[in-house]
Amino acid sequence: MTYTPNRNKLTDVSRTLAKVAMGEAAADLVIQNGTLVNVYSGELLTHMDVAIAAGRIAYIGKADHTIGAQTTLIDAAGKFLVPGLLDGHMHVESTMLSVTEFAKAAIVKGTTGIFMDPHEIANVFGSEGVRLMHDEGQQLPLKVFTTFPSCVPATNDLEDGGATLEVADIQAGLQWDNVVGLGEVMNFPGVVYGDPKMCGEIEATLLSGKTVTGHFPSDDDRMLQAYLASGVTSDHETVTREQGLHKVRMGMHLMIREGSAWHDVKEVIKIVTEDCVNTSNISLVTDDVNPQTLVEKGHLNHVARRAIEEGVDPVTAIQMVTINVARYFKLEHDLGSISPGKCADILLIDDLQKMEPTTVITDGQVIAEQGKLVVEFPVFTYPAHIRTSMNVKRELTADDFKLASTAGRDTTKVNVINVIENSARTEKMTAELRVDAGHIQPDPAQDVVRLACIERHRGTGQISLAFAHGFGVTSGAVASTVAHDSHNLLVMGIDEADMAFAANELVKLGGGMIVVEHGQVLAQVPMTIAGLMSEKSLPEVVAEVAQMDQAWKQIGCSLNAPYMTFSLIALPVIPEIRISNRGLVDVTEFTLIDVEIVS
Amino acid sequence: MTYTPNRNKLTDVSRTLAKVAMGEAAADLVIQNGTLVNVYSGELLTHMDVAIAAGRIAYIGKADHTIGAQTTLIDAAGKFLVPGLLDGHMHVESTMLSVTEFAKAAIVKGTTGIFMDPHEIANVFGSEGVRLMHDEGQQLPLKVFTTFPSCVPATNDLEDGGATLEVADIQAGLQWDNVVGLGEVMNFPGVVYGDPKMCGEIEATLLSGKTVTGHFPSDDDRMLQAYLASGVTSDHETVTREQGLHKVRMGMHLMIREGSAWHDVKEVIKIVTEDCVNTSNISLVTDDVNPQTLVEKGHLNHVARRAIEEGVDPVTAIQMVTINVARYFKLEHDLGSISPGKCADILLIDDLQKMEPTTVITDGQVIAEQGKLVVEFPVFTYPAHIRTSMNVKRELTADDFKLASTAGRDTTKVNVINVIENSARTEKMTAELRVDAGHIQPDPAQDVVRLACIERHRGTGQISLAFAHGFGVTSGAVASTVAHDSHNLLVMGIDEADMAFAANELVKLGGGMIVVEHGQVLAQVPMTIAGLMSEKSLPEVVAEVAQMDQAWKQIGCSLNAPYMTFSLIALPVIPEIRISNRGLVDVTEFTLIDVEIVS
Repeated sequence: MTYTPNRNKLTDVSRTLAKVAMGEAAADLVIQNGTLVNVYSGELLTHMDVAIAAGRIAYIGKADHTIGAQTTLIDAAGKFLVPGLLDGHMHVESTMLSVTEFAKAAIVKGTTGIFMDPHEIANVFGSEGVRLMHDEGQQLPLKVFTTFPSCVPATNDLEDGGATLEVADIQAGLQWDNVVGLGEVMNFPGVVYGDPKMCGEIEATLLSGKTVTGHFPSDDDRMLQAYLASGVTSDHETVTREQGLHKVRMGMHLMIREGSAWHDVKEVIKIVTEDCVNTSNISLVTDDVNPQTLVEKGHLNHVARRAIEEGVDPVTAIQMVTINVARYFKLEHDLGSISPGKCADILLIDDLQKMEPTTVITDGQVIAEQGKLVVEFPVFTYPAHIRTSMNVKRELTADDFKLASTAGRDTTKVNVINVIENSARTEKMTAELRVDAGHIQPDPAQDVVRLACIERHRGTGQISLAFAHGFGVTSGAVASTVAHDSHNLLVMGIDEADMAFAANELVKLGGGMIVVEHGQVLAQVPMTIAGLMSEKSLPEVVAEVAQMDQAWKQIGCSLNAPYMTFSLIALPVIPEIRISNRGLVDVTEFTLIDVEIVS
Repeated sequence: MTYTPNRNKLTDVSRTLAKVAMGEAAADLVIQNGTLVNVYSGELLTHMDVAIAAGRIAYIGKADHTIGAQTTLIDAAGKFLVPGLLDGHMHVESTMLSVTEFAKAAIVKGTTGIFMDPHEIANVFGSEGVRLMHDEGQQLPLKVFTTFPSCVPATNDLEDGGATLEVADIQAGLQWDNVVGLGEVMNFPGVVYGDPKMCGEIEATLLSGKTVTGHFPSDDDRMLQAYLASGVTSDHETVTREQGLHKVRMGMHLMIREGSAWHDVKEVIKIVTEDCVNTSNISLVTDDVNPQTLVEKGHLNHVARRAIEEGVDPVTAIQMVTINVARYFKLEHDLGSISPGKCADILLIDDLQKMEPTTVITDGQVIAEQGKLVVEFPVFTYPAHIRTSMNVKRELTADDFKLASTAGRDTTKVNVINVIENSARTEKMTAELRVDAGHIQPDPAQDVVRLACIERHRGTGQISLAFAHGFGVTSGAVASTVAHDSHNLLVMGIDEADMAFAANELVKLGGGMIVVEHGQVLAQVPMTIAGLMSEKSLPEVVAEVAQMDQAWKQIGCSLNAPYMTFSLIALPVIPEIRISNRGLVDVTEFTLIDVEIVS
């Protein structure tokens, strides 16, 4: 059965709903005899029916009077009726999936609405990319709201991405239907110190009556309050109980995150279980989840489950993924509860501890049952230029990856990026490397490998070279066009011929991730949508990623999720040292530095 | 000291606030060392400073770094810091005061924001009247938000008021700054059954992104859900615990009311103290308070105090008059909490049980101390035609109040309006009255008095006559231009000459209330603003009302607040029987009926 949209404005269907409530017209669907999780009263109400018409809830309670000859009935005896889950902050690009394929994966897990920040595609294709992902979302059973990316590029003078977004772009985007706010304002020092672009974006958002979402990983209380007083109202970067408690007290909407790499619930949820703060301004979010997590743990239902495991009452946990999110984005009239007038986004769940929906209904239509989709999703095809985003000047050769030494000695001292497993941070270190035929050589014995960042958006031919430590790679090469935030072509390896091979193969693929060795492709994950997202389904992508994980091991790297650590090595806003297409970046000083240290 | 407005949009002053928070600029005012009632976390936080600049809160905590040479300091040791109180539903006209004089009275009691429904003036002067009261409110230290009156007139065919409001008027009004929604939609059957005007008003409000406030006094669950599904989201007419609990469960924003005549807290607050529901969607409101209540009990602080007396935790009670109200009207970014960025509307209170502010600050300015205003409020003068609203065709004579009998007998049977003390309802009864010289006579022995309703807006000369029972009036006459909802000239008495005298004197006064006996004025309360509000101060009005109460007793009436019962006798939307300018109205059948029953 093909999905037929059934999403209606309340004002267009309120007459129908009123008639159904009064018993003057029949409901389309009545869910019978469930236990309703009432997020308003905070109660579990037994023996409740929900009558649905025109995609919205008309009546709850004993609803026999709404049943007509054409009314579909669903027996919910023994099941909980839970409002569809709303993820208040996430990046679809992290899943490596298109919005459509992500929606398929998320909706079976009970996520019926997301507030996505398409920050990655914005760095490649600007407003056009944001618009495409947003538009893709609008035709799905999943409700896709967009917070418009606020910090593109992440830095002004240290890298070259595919696009920039100015205040005027944000103003224009805020006018689109279902763009509900400004995406995480990562440049918090810019806000606090009055950067005109940051302040202009916030002003535009506030004047449009929308929500300014935040990102505040600092412990600086004064900066936090300056940030809040500038109009930013949420944060999802909190990792300690103390910071969480402080932010709630300051009136910040606290989004507690449980992503694939960030496991913040265990610690931060103590403000609920131990400090017992009022929870009405707290929500749970995923931020970034990778394909494996979607398969193995689920989506937002997993985050709610984690909160419950830590001792949060299930009704409270559900409030934190439903009504609290809807209220924060001023969408309470449509979403976040099972009550008259609201969109009929409803989950049937056997066990609130497990949070696994057996039936998922959106806009009054059954979308999934027993973890399987029962409707076919529409197909969204990205334009050709979005699917051929690799714009590298020419085929690369081994010589492109050779870094000349100016010291004129047999060995030379270089700055090296040291990565840390399971951390987004890097450390600045130095190494003494051999110089051979005028070129600085990597040294597997010291775990120092070659690194390159190739501009891939405008075909400038620009290549920067450097060295990395900590991956354990002993042969072959890897390449990725997922390279936060500018998403240039990142290459790493021992052998310069393999590096050229990896880069050239990835260009041919149209972007994604690849692992090669001795001129052979060991594994690849093609990501043809902007070089960021696959066009394949979740199971296919998971299989490809698993093979890639194996290939990383084969070339010597045993880090956990090495491709994530690798893709962050180009992000010049997190300390201490990064590579961009322009060169090696000291993120403490926000300046480009030389690789070779010639004293 | 004259009040100088200091209300700034966050976007206009956020840079200043950020600098103050960072210690780069000095605060205007720092309140030091208080115990902060944190409505977000639900905690009491001791030893808290609040730094204020440009009328907003820049920083909370230990704020020494924000203090400069010019910073004013307030010592709050031993005091609670409470967000200014927000009254989510009220009619200023009920206080008999202008918005300015009401504001003076309310602000010393801690009310710093109101959401008024200027329904009464709308019935006299339409949108112009609403605009004037709204504009009067905009220049005050009190924040005055308007919900645009939705039901003017209350009925279409049973009475003639001074104005009507159509959907286009509501659409226009919704564009004014600080009009935040639609006023209580009293015509709930109209909503439920699809009256085009009601549905059009709701649609206009929802499409403007604003809030549709309700009024649902019925026990009919299906109508309630149809009403909610039509987009109305609140109610303040709930009088039972069961109804309160049901409405919260249905997702309705429940406004629990404690006015002068309606004492709903004691019963309805049990949903909090006994049913222990989540309180985030509940607020406390006054609806209608008369001048005496303002003096004797206070304003919204009294309602919060009543909730606390019934066992509600003070922090929870305060949430119900601050953040919950702000959220309901989508104003959380400006109001309802003491946190960075918000308007600096702050009360200093010694004892949360008593809820009597010792200092009231709005927009960072001290407005009241120890129950006295410390700034002079601006003067607002209504245009001449608003202050001369009496448009009666000609001077009235005793003959105007004589009702002819058509029965041709010595006695005749008539329909009589029986009033009930402390209730807005009336009962339909009959009486056998003497006929003298062809006219039906009142009978003090049966407690049946003459009643008249004179059209006073368009000088049509229309007079309707009837009889009332239950006032105990034995001589003299009373008249009032406060006569819900059309506010025609209502007259009651035994002696027809006194009735004419009362009417003529009240016309000369320009409207208000009057009690006369034997051709002498016993008491009068001039209400020259639309015939609804005095231009005097609260103490003056209270003295006049006290004298009027005494005068009612002198002419034989010992009811509690008889002028209120009297002013409601013309309201043809509450059962069972009423008088309008068109005649006697059977409110069960919604039809005009004869006074005399000729069988």
